[in-house]
Amino acid sequence: MFEHQVKFRVLYSDTDKMGYMYYGQYAKYLEMGRVESLRSLGLSYRSMEDTGVIMPVLDLKLKYIKPLYYDDEVILITKICKMPGTRIYFEYELRNPKGEVATIAETTLVFVDRETGKPCLIPENFKSKMETYF
Amino acid sequence: MFEHQVKFRVLYSDTDKMGYMYYGQYAKYLEMGRVESLRSLGLSYRSMEDTGVIMPVLDLKLKYIKPLYYDDEVILITKICKMPGTRIYFEYELRNPKGEVATIAETTLVFVDRETGKPCLIPENFKSKMETYF
Amino acid sequence: MFEHQVKFRVLYSDTDKMGYMYYGQYAKYLEMGRVESLRSLGLSYRSMEDTGVIMPVLDLKLKYIKPLYYDDEVILITKICKMPGTRIYFEYELRNPKGEVATIAETTLVFVDRETGKPCLIPENFKSKMETYF
Amino acid sequence: MFEHQVKFRVLYSDTDKMGYMYYGQYAKYLEMGRVESLRSLGLSYRSMEDTGVIMPVLDLKLKYIKPLYYDDEVILITKICKMPGTRIYFEYELRNPKGEVATIAETTLVFVDRETGKPCLIPENFKSKMETYF
Repeated sequence: MFEHQVKFRVLYSDTDKMGYMYYGQYAKYLEMGRVESLRSLGLSYRSMEDTGVIMPVLDLKLKYIKPLYYDDEVILITKICKMPGTRIYFEYELRNPKGEVATIAETTLVFVDRETGKPCLIPENFKSKMETYF
Repeated sequence: MFEHQVKFRVLYSDTDKMGYMYYGQYAKYLEMGRVESLRSLGLSYRSMEDTGVIMPVLDLKLKYIKPLYYDDEVILITKICKMPGTRIYFEYELRNPKGEVATIAETTLVFVDRETGKPCLIPENFKSKMETYF
Repeated sequence: MFEHQVKFRVLYSDTDKMGYMYYGQYAKYLEMGRVESLRSLGLSYRSMEDTGVIMPVLDLKLKYIKPLYYDDEVILITKICKMPGTRIYFEYELRNPKGEVATIAETTLVFVDRETGKPCLIPENFKSKMETYF
Repeated sequence: MFEHQVKFRVLYSDTDKMGYMYYGQYAKYLEMGRVESLRSLGLSYRSMEDTGVIMPVLDLKLKYIKPLYYDDEVILITKICKMPGTRIYFEYELRNPKGEVATIAETTLVFVDRETGKPCLIPENFKSKMETYF
């Protein structure tokens, strides 16, 4: 299993009139979790795209357990629990400043060859990095 | 069962460098679906809030079947398939300009008394409108 | 002079914890104003892009005079006050449900040839539509 | 004069189909610049709000000189060039990974007493921190 942590602050921009982080603002932070977790492995999503492989999102699940508030420093934990093949599953946990699990989430992404538009296997350098965790 | 349709256009603002509607931009349109479907029943979410009942989102599920593209006119179908109690379940279908189902989604919301912060029953006027559909 | 009106509703998504429409949410509605005003002339920004001309934004000015609130139905007035050449200037006025001017804005965009990345003249069909207003 | 630097990465979420950071995504990073620059002085915008003073934005100006691209690490420089009174002026500079000025911006904010809804003077602790720079 592979696990990574990154922190972010809830911006005013993220809040809504209820005073919470708006339910539609989480997805971009999950993206940040994916990209920074890959970067921590020496993998750059941008470089992967430059070699012609893109990773569209197939599905997203979010469970809002406790609200996140303005200026909260949130710990975002990103996990890959299964060796990726054509698809890659990410799991996420967002912890509020008290250390409580505020949100859990899951996404499935698929490796796609930009030329053909068809699913393809995980690129070799990505695969070899991942194999050390499984 | 209650069903409602509304249309929207994919803005440049909604796209990402892949050329698709970004996966994190859907949630706000689901919100639009909820609010406009309620308005079509003569129910105003704003008025409900003014009477002290808020409706935080408990969970969100999105399945991205086909991409939506810039300037696509999208049909958003919002459904309530079950009589709401303390919670209300919405289902959604987004159809692309060819009429194909591009995205399906589900959300659960809970009625909460703003004073106590505790779940409460569906407000009476909302309930009586809903009962005609079930 | 060319002038166009379109309406939109302030979403929960647009609000912040102050209860106002967040100052960073206006730009996407200005984009909607531009695109819908052009569409009303029979011009499609998407088709223009398909012929190889893009229109990046050079500058943006926004003056927030009165707040806009959740669920407000806002009238967005988009104006072109000067015959466009290589650049096009838009002016905007947002009116709240009382009819008061809540926000004024300006943007400058430039026509760019996507191949060369260099500024180019306004496309012919766009030019001829515009000339009837000046 | 007071000056502060913070870095951020352009997310996929921030890009549009042109491949650039969308012109409407900058405002939230300017907010981050304001909040983090104040935090570096030991000032918390959240605490200020808790004492009843809010800071709505009166105007925003953005000049897009060079595009910012996906995954660019951007240096955001936030400056206060004038001792704040009832209003506070921020200036911003965004530098791309080559160190070039990609964007410049300005905002005016006003101190407002939440109870009365009227403009008020800069809070004392904020004022005394600021005075050391002017």
